[in-house]
Amino acid sequence: MRMYDIIMKKREGGALSGEEIRFFVNGFTTGRIPDYQASALMMAIYFQGMDERETLELTLAMAQSGEMLDLSAIRGIKVDKHSTGGVGDKTSLALIPMVAACGIPVAKMSGRGLGHTGGTIDKLESFPGFRTDLTREQFLRGVNEIGIAIMGQTADLAPADKKLYALRDVTATVDNMSLIASSIMSKKLAAGADAMVLDVKTGNGAFMKKEEDAQALALEMVEIGRQAGRRTIAVVSDMDQPLGRAVGNALEVKEAIDTLDGKGPEDFRELCLTLGSCMLLAGGKAENVEEARRLLCQVLADGSAKRKLARFVENQGGDPSAVYDTSLLPAASIVRPVPAPESGYIAHIACDEVGIASLLLGGGRETKDSVIDLSVGLVLNARVGDYVHAGEPLAWLHANDAGKADQAQARFLGAYEFSDAPVKCGPLIKRIIGEIHT
Amino acid sequence: MRMYDIIMKKREGGALSGEEIRFFVNGFTTGRIPDYQASALMMAIYFQGMDERETLELTLAMAQSGEMLDLSAIRGIKVDKHSTGGVGDKTSLALIPMVAACGIPVAKMSGRGLGHTGGTIDKLESFPGFRTDLTREQFLRGVNEIGIAIMGQTADLAPADKKLYALRDVTATVDNMSLIASSIMSKKLAAGADAMVLDVKTGNGAFMKKEEDAQALALEMVEIGRQAGRRTIAVVSDMDQPLGRAVGNALEVKEAIDTLDGKGPEDFRELCLTLGSCMLLAGGKAENVEEARRLLCQVLADGSAKRKLARFVENQGGDPSAVYDTSLLPAASIVRPVPAPESGYIAHIACDEVGIASLLLGGGRETKDSVIDLSVGLVLNARVGDYVHAGEPLAWLHANDAGKADQAQARFLGAYEFSDAPVKCGPLIKRIIGEIHT
Repeated sequence: MRMYDIIMKKREGGALSGEEIRFFVNGFTTGRIPDYQASALMMAIYFQGMDERETLELTLAMAQSGEMLDLSAIRGIKVDKHSTGGVGDKTSLALIPMVAACGIPVAKMSGRGLGHTGGTIDKLESFPGFRTDLTREQFLRGVNEIGIAIMGQTADLAPADKKLYALRDVTATVDNMSLIASSIMSKKLAAGADAMVLDVKTGNGAFMKKEEDAQALALEMVEIGRQAGRRTIAVVSDMDQPLGRAVGNALEVKEAIDTLDGKGPEDFRELCLTLGSCMLLAGGKAENVEEARRLLCQVLADGSAKRKLARFVENQGGDPSAVYDTSLLPAASIVRPVPAPESGYIAHIACDEVGIASLLLGGGRETKDSVIDLSVGLVLNARVGDYVHAGEPLAWLHANDAGKADQAQARFLGAYEFSDAPVKCGPLIKRIIGEIHT
Repeated sequence: MRMYDIIMKKREGGALSGEEIRFFVNGFTTGRIPDYQASALMMAIYFQGMDERETLELTLAMAQSGEMLDLSAIRGIKVDKHSTGGVGDKTSLALIPMVAACGIPVAKMSGRGLGHTGGTIDKLESFPGFRTDLTREQFLRGVNEIGIAIMGQTADLAPADKKLYALRDVTATVDNMSLIASSIMSKKLAAGADAMVLDVKTGNGAFMKKEEDAQALALEMVEIGRQAGRRTIAVVSDMDQPLGRAVGNALEVKEAIDTLDGKGPEDFRELCLTLGSCMLLAGGKAENVEEARRLLCQVLADGSAKRKLARFVENQGGDPSAVYDTSLLPAASIVRPVPAPESGYIAHIACDEVGIASLLLGGGRETKDSVIDLSVGLVLNARVGDYVHAGEPLAWLHANDAGKADQAQARFLGAYEFSDAPVKCGPLIKRIIGEIHT
């Protein structure tokens, strides 16, 4: 078998066999197949596409290119959750304690990543002392005893995807639906959960700007999950404006805790209830959506979700008192309003610009070695469709450096468009795909 | 400017600017742009194509990536000739002395290359003592004094093309018309001639199997030549069977000398007259095709073309007596007939298989380091459409090793198909493209 023939076959529109796909993935991972042949194949796939079977084979081959985690030592149906990412997306921070309080075991490997804010692990480090360098045994015991454990991604999960994604990223071959789906799903399959719930974002702050693209990606991933024998549900949700109000690490932790207290922003609470319901259904903890939502509302109302968060933080070395007194979380020295430059209805918020404002404040990583300032960020006061008066605070800016604050504020204000006429905001939940009983 | 954006632009079907093309060619040649981005761009070009302007810009950028030869020290209009290659293609050996005898100065840089037989330089080394390691001064003096000089390709001609072709060759991105045309033309433009005649082969032994593809390539190259200010004529000629009768180095030299003597195969003589006419017209040595052919027939009939070959060989250290006594050329120890396995009309000759038979005898290079046996090869007795009786010699095999002879014979016979019904052979000259007065 020759890589040349595989490139040629795809270039001519042929469907690659499982053997050919595995030959490519294994050869590429070990370095036998050079980057320049892989990128030519990726571009040929961009133009000729892959069918459902090819996409599944690619996903499985990439999943199997490294360690496949064995979570069988954990009792119960393990349900994983994945978001395609957006601005202000602190969902896991509230969702995980909620579903864990309902009896879903959560065993999560998380990365730090680059972005406008840190990853879930960075955010959790807002709890003084919190750490994720667990041994495999501590990790499994944490899940079995507390119901939640999170560790840094130490295992060699889907190395083929890691290498291939890095190559696609610099050769303009990222945006193909099959390649995106197989990239996400290969890591999820390797991470070992029995079922998974995917939050596919759409809108100006999402990778998938168009709703139809997000739906197509969701469908493709649900199909891969089904064929790989993992129950998979996808929720297509709005990212045409930041999720909730807080953007920034400790600020997002506070918003998650507020939500566990029943005082969070409506959109964020709703997304947690929707994704949580899907996780409960996938994990067999509820018969239908009503029952699932009732259970979730109950663990919010009786404080058990919040207590679950505190136990989890404590079990991983963090100070649980910050869960009950959020003034103990990292706080910025400068907190000031960003006045609205004009009166009107908010017509548009460019999420990426809000994210960059957070990055300028020091809340995210520009390079792998950047140090994150957990305390900084923005708390938005108004959402798309809201009417604001000129001079009223559009948001509160949390900073530790006045110069950075000025820079970030200018960037932040550039994200907004105003309208004299009322503006309607689209629904938060666009569609739910997969087997779900209503 | 970023290579990523250039790949993306082409992927989306955009036309690259001259600046973008030069950025790519220069960056790729110097190694700043990695192979994996170049191959992704090549695949995007395969699918999206390039327009006439882009193809010209790419050609010029590759031509200018190394030395541009200056032939201004040579008097007269320098006309170069290029063949896209085929089996038994010894055209230069007869054509060059013919046009030189008519007053066209021939200053040729030639390579050795890999293939079924050697390149022009290898073939010329059949003359004992012949050498091509000339200084630049010897080379120019040879052209001015004798009318012909050939030197090995020492200059760094179009290094971008060399590097890019090697990459395309392993990433299934060779067969795009614009890329093929720019590859050939970049080297020709760098080689410094004022005008050029291109022999574009078509048929089972050619790179362009289909006549319409060969025509499209010819048109594209003529257009590039025109826009680059070099008079360019392309001849689309048949390669559905080996050219002439001889395949093998010294055997081809002998056939070329026979042709200069007026005793060569009809098809080969006709191709030389056609290409020669184009060269004379391009070089301003004739007003029209009739006059050009008359001049060429005259230098054949009066022996001046043959004398030109002898002077050229002598000037480059070779023994000119072999021009007059071809028994002095390298000769194989075994010469034996290959009997026709059946009676019938020859319906098809697979050129590549004939070429491989020559290679098996030792007449070509499999790797750069192979040593060529100049004496071996095949002389065909019959052409497509000819009737042969079983047992009659289909060809004569020249070998120095009985085992290799058996291997080559089996391979050679596999190239033939016979028919009971008469078979018609297509025309040798399919089309002439470019400005030519008739």
